[in-house]
Amino acid sequence: MDWLDEVKWDEQGLLPVIAQEVGSNDVLMFAFMNREALARTAATGQAVYWSRSRRRLWHKGEASGHFQQVHEMRLDCDNDVLLLKVTQLGHAPGIACHTGRHSCFFRRFEHGAWRSIEPVLLDPEQIYK
Amino acid sequence: MDWLDEVKWDEQGLLPVIAQEVGSNDVLMFAFMNREALARTAATGQAVYWSRSRRRLWHKGEASGHFQQVHEMRLDCDNDVLLLKVTQLGHAPGIACHTGRHSCFFRRFEHGAWRSIEPVLLDPEQIYK
Repeated sequence: MDWLDEVKWDEQGLLPVIAQEVGSNDVLMFAFMNREALARTAATGQAVYWSRSRRRLWHKGEASGHFQQVHEMRLDCDNDVLLLKVTQLGHAPGIACHTGRHSCFFRRFEHGAWRSIEPVLLDPEQIYK
Repeated sequence: MDWLDEVKWDEQGLLPVIAQEVGSNDVLMFAFMNREALARTAATGQAVYWSRSRRRLWHKGEASGHFQQVHEMRLDCDNDVLLLKVTQLGHAPGIACHTGRHSCFFRRFEHGAWRSIEPVLLDPEQIYK
């Protein structure tokens, strides 16, 4: 499949991926895909990443139920970063973060410190039970 | 400076950075910072990255005039990815990409191929002269 060969995979065979919410345009999370993860994402229409810590394919939502429906995939000018436009499923508003927050980017730099500014929408113990 | 120590730098001492436009919420580009780049970004209010290809600090806009004014910095749940909220300066609409486009993410996946779907706003030969 040519389109997979156009991607410039890094030395570990991975591609950085940004997931952005359709509608709000909020940046939800950042993760990696390998070749198989990207192929599966394209084939199934749901985000499949490569978990570097667990060293296996990670169908986002497999444990939490918080799957990501993929509307669009965009490759950058260097062919080495992917932008996914997604609907974050399983909860309203969407929960992308394992901490139970909407977005993983919930710590804002303020006066020389990182401060959590987004609410926990659902207790992780409720999510991963 | 404690806040710099809270960042989980990768094995090369780098941090992946997503630049998002204030207002449109468009994702403009993806790059890396090292510790000094992040310190300078915080101190100056303009995005300073680490160029991996040139192996030096890269004050975005130094060659193009397309500087990025930083309004907000967000760290993710794992402390290893940064989200910048920026105004893309130097041209209206903003040009973040070295190809003269608004965003680096201009290639959309369509029917098994990556297709360029965003216009070139300014010829790169005009930008880098």
